[in-house]
Amino acid sequence: MTHIQTTSEPAIILVSPQMGENIGAAARVMANFGLTDLRIINPRDGWPNSKADTMSAGAFDWGVYARVYDTLEEGIADLTYVLATTARPRGMEKPVFNVDQGIGALVSRPNVGIGVMFGAEKMGLLNEEVTLADAILTYPVDRSFSSLNLAQAVGVFAHAWAARDNAVTPEEFAGVGDVARRDELMRMFEHFEEELDRAGFFFPEEKRPVMTQNIRSALIRAQWTRQEVQTFRGAIKALAVGRGKARVQRED
Amino acid sequence: MTHIQTTSEPAIILVSPQMGENIGAAARVMANFGLTDLRIINPRDGWPNSKADTMSAGAFDWGVYARVYDTLEEGIADLTYVLATTARPRGMEKPVFNVDQGIGALVSRPNVGIGVMFGAEKMGLLNEEVTLADAILTYPVDRSFSSLNLAQAVGVFAHAWAARDNAVTPEEFAGVGDVARRDELMRMFEHFEEELDRAGFFFPEEKRPVMTQNIRSALIRAQWTRQEVQTFRGAIKALAVGRGKARVQRED
Repeated sequence: MTHIQTTSEPAIILVSPQMGENIGAAARVMANFGLTDLRIINPRDGWPNSKADTMSAGAFDWGVYARVYDTLEEGIADLTYVLATTARPRGMEKPVFNVDQGIGALVSRPNVGIGVMFGAEKMGLLNEEVTLADAILTYPVDRSFSSLNLAQAVGVFAHAWAARDNAVTPEEFAGVGDVARRDELMRMFEHFEEELDRAGFFFPEEKRPVMTQNIRSALIRAQWTRQEVQTFRGAIKALAVGRGKARVQRED
Repeated sequence: MTHIQTTSEPAIILVSPQMGENIGAAARVMANFGLTDLRIINPRDGWPNSKADTMSAGAFDWGVYARVYDTLEEGIADLTYVLATTARPRGMEKPVFNVDQGIGALVSRPNVGIGVMFGAEKMGLLNEEVTLADAILTYPVDRSFSSLNLAQAVGVFAHAWAARDNAVTPEEFAGVGDVARRDELMRMFEHFEEELDRAGFFFPEEKRPVMTQNIRSALIRAQWTRQEVQTFRGAIKALAVGRGKARVQRED
């Protein structure tokens, strides 16, 4: 398979965008660089949005296909490799790529669903959203003026994607064809966390978010195959059942 | 001098921009990526512009310094190497660079004034404006949806500049330190064209623009040194005087 690379088009995932103008401008620059898969998670002002239409300069008619989801998990369910754009390092144990490296990482994963997440205006992506990504994509912004317009962030990525023949592959990617979809991973996480919860793992309660984040972040790095997901879920189940009667009645 | 490269910051030159919003958004993304030298040529709605201020998100206070000029020639007078962004090839005899190559070309010219020209919304740069550049910078836009927002075009360049440590130098640049400024070249062109005019060269009259453009485009490719400009102007003068009494009274 070495020289056969049929790279899917990356989905552009806007997480909780606020202004319709920015969604429209993002769609326009996607079209400029030939991208069509736009996923809008929980848009503040609903959808459709007339300001988005105006700013899109006809991109939706041209072929940008926008889908709206209530949650990020739904929006990335069918993907297997996702980048999260952030302006600043988050101290997470994830690969941090510049744009060339990020494009290279996407290109090196043929025949799988790929995407890039962009956070809301001002706030960017929340940590629990970044946790769901495989790697972080950063732009070399000036630290004293780091708030990049949302559509500009999409534009920089979209240009780099269109220019990807020059991209550098940051690593060889060994496993192809069998990578678990993001929704399969999410079910695995939920299963794991449910059992951890029953086991009293999340204590004190206020540490639950950071504990969950750390676990997900660690587990997601491995690019699980479907078989590995099945195996791990079997292991969770076994441990849970082994712990005693609390799990006896559970059907999976 | 081989390993000493003190690259100046490139000027961002907006030629006849129409909407203040775009000027402001361009200033914002310049600041995001640490650029400060903004030159606005003949803005349709004048300057200052309240819409530009709003969209700049404080970039002018941060440090983007905007200067306004009536003509492109004035705006690039102090520069020695200028790129022109165009969406489509113009059939001109100039190097055509992608963004990585364009950045490499700029980086390879230390200690000189460098800049990038961006044309008006919808129209882009006119051919006579592109003629004044040393090379063309193109983005790989989709041909069926090629109209990039002005500030997006600036943003793609500004990001690539900030990420320039990864840039590829397209060529070695031999001559440094002595390159003629753009205003010196312009005076040379005007001198030459004036004499050509007296000699009846521009015939028929409607061909004058394309003839001028071809001459300027050919001459500008050489990255003239100041000495070469002096020599060429001497040659023009000699030819003109040699042609007869029409030039006898002229003081230079």
